[in-house]
Amino acid sequence: MSLLVVGSVAFDSIKTPFGQVDQALGGSATYFSTSASYYTDVKLVAVVGEDFPEAELDELRGRGIDLEGLVRQPGATFRWKGEYGLDLNDARTLDTQLNVFEHFKPVLPDAYRDSAYVFLGNIHPALQLQVLDQIRAPKLVAADTMNFWINGEPALLREVLSRIDMLFVNDAEARALTGEPNIVKAAQKIKAMGPSRVMIKRGEFGALLFDRDQFFFAPAYPLEDVFDPTGAGDSFGGGFMGYVARQDDLSPRTLCQATVIGAVMASYCVERFSLERLRQLGPHLIEKRYHQFRALTDFAALSPLST
Amino acid sequence: MSLLVVGSVAFDSIKTPFGQVDQALGGSATYFSTSASYYTDVKLVAVVGEDFPEAELDELRGRGIDLEGLVRQPGATFRWKGEYGLDLNDARTLDTQLNVFEHFKPVLPDAYRDSAYVFLGNIHPALQLQVLDQIRAPKLVAADTMNFWINGEPALLREVLSRIDMLFVNDAEARALTGEPNIVKAAQKIKAMGPSRVMIKRGEFGALLFDRDQFFFAPAYPLEDVFDPTGAGDSFGGGFMGYVARQDDLSPRTLCQATVIGAVMASYCVERFSLERLRQLGPHLIEKRYHQFRALTDFAALSPLST
Repeated sequence: MSLLVVGSVAFDSIKTPFGQVDQALGGSATYFSTSASYYTDVKLVAVVGEDFPEAELDELRGRGIDLEGLVRQPGATFRWKGEYGLDLNDARTLDTQLNVFEHFKPVLPDAYRDSAYVFLGNIHPALQLQVLDQIRAPKLVAADTMNFWINGEPALLREVLSRIDMLFVNDAEARALTGEPNIVKAAQKIKAMGPSRVMIKRGEFGALLFDRDQFFFAPAYPLEDVFDPTGAGDSFGGGFMGYVARQDDLSPRTLCQATVIGAVMASYCVERFSLERLRQLGPHLIEKRYHQFRALTDFAALSPLST
Repeated sequence: MSLLVVGSVAFDSIKTPFGQVDQALGGSATYFSTSASYYTDVKLVAVVGEDFPEAELDELRGRGIDLEGLVRQPGATFRWKGEYGLDLNDARTLDTQLNVFEHFKPVLPDAYRDSAYVFLGNIHPALQLQVLDQIRAPKLVAADTMNFWINGEPALLREVLSRIDMLFVNDAEARALTGEPNIVKAAQKIKAMGPSRVMIKRGEFGALLFDRDQFFFAPAYPLEDVFDPTGAGDSFGGGFMGYVARQDDLSPRTLCQATVIGAVMASYCVERFSLERLRQLGPHLIEKRYHQFRALTDFAALSPLST
């Protein structure tokens, strides 16, 4: 089934303890759509500037990503510059140049408006609402956000929450949004604000899916070489939503598998800078790591006290 | 099989955002042995003062914990006073009174020296070495430690590491011990120092077992009510070692199950202050949560791309 994503396409300059890249392809919608493209057709809504290379667009198109909703505007593409310390959990933003993104108004081509699965990347809640106004009868609408909007646009964000089915946030965002330190209770409070499902992203500690009536946990894969965590959350989201759209199913079983697929995609993303590793995957590598995840968490079903 | 634990028996005064207790029973060996007592016979080596109530000893004996190695000495029992903030991950020590623990020399009764499974609680590495000198032919010797010894007694600790089979540490301790920020590489470096197995404890984010040739992850159970994290790590260790001793088996399958059993015991421990909850368990409650863990992490084995 069709999957729509709205978010940023950017150039990132990133320094980690293991190296650096200048103006490499980045942005939430780029990571998300590349990750999801292994599972389903993706329609992308975003904006780039005059400086955005046609070759990068061809690369995205080559993955079956529909770019009718990607507009090119006068000016430069969004740029972000950041740095990670040794723990790799928190990025320090050194510079943000919104450029063409500053006046971005998402407009959905008519063919996009019937998308069954929708992901609202981490953009201004007002823009997320504009997208919600344009979609017709989706089966699952998920959104990402961050503390900047939680603190800066609480009313608009609450309106978004009342109109979506699922929220993707990290621990700190869930706590900031609800004022509740306990993560189980925080997830329940978020559900009371609208979404029937909540995904708590915990970086190197995995992800916790609060489905309608149960929860599920997927660890992050313990990697020897983590080069650059940029895009891990969006790769996770792309894997999750792409797999759900591909299965066209919202059963707990599919959502559990989708959470692991998200963790698989995030684990590959961080092994190289930018989209380098994420672009080189295929069914074999995806299944290989999926089974590694299974080995990592599977314990025998036998009753521990009666064997 | 018999399980020997050497560690502290203490009175803890603890304040968390959810309440406080004064001089409640605590100590690494107390939590460990109570947790392990659900699975196997435990022999305890520790010291208490004249003020330690006989009723508490009777309670431990009632669980099949052998107290021949518990000595009572003139003076007061070890006391610790600490406080937790809302995140519950880090305790702030307000006061430590070593009392009789200051001159503690672990002496193993002869019947203890043939224990097959041994756990060296988080005490001075010199004392851990004294215990190692007294045991004869153990099948598995595990030890716990902390940054205080990693930084303060590096040479003695390295000697301990060269003589044990398994180390229990948290992320920060593994990094401090090896100077390696990546946790997979840090575990490998610890193995190169001696132990063939390493358990990385991650508090509310679960535990990662580095077995000889593979690794395994168990999450912490997402709880709505966490009252007091004190003793969680020792309850985890007690569940792990108790289950391994009960099965008398070091296969990867048993160690995976033991990791989950450890997580089960820790999850119950934190639901109340002191040993209150840990003392009230039984096979039914343990199996119930074991299966809850299974539901939390089990995803179907089907190939994700070919279904």
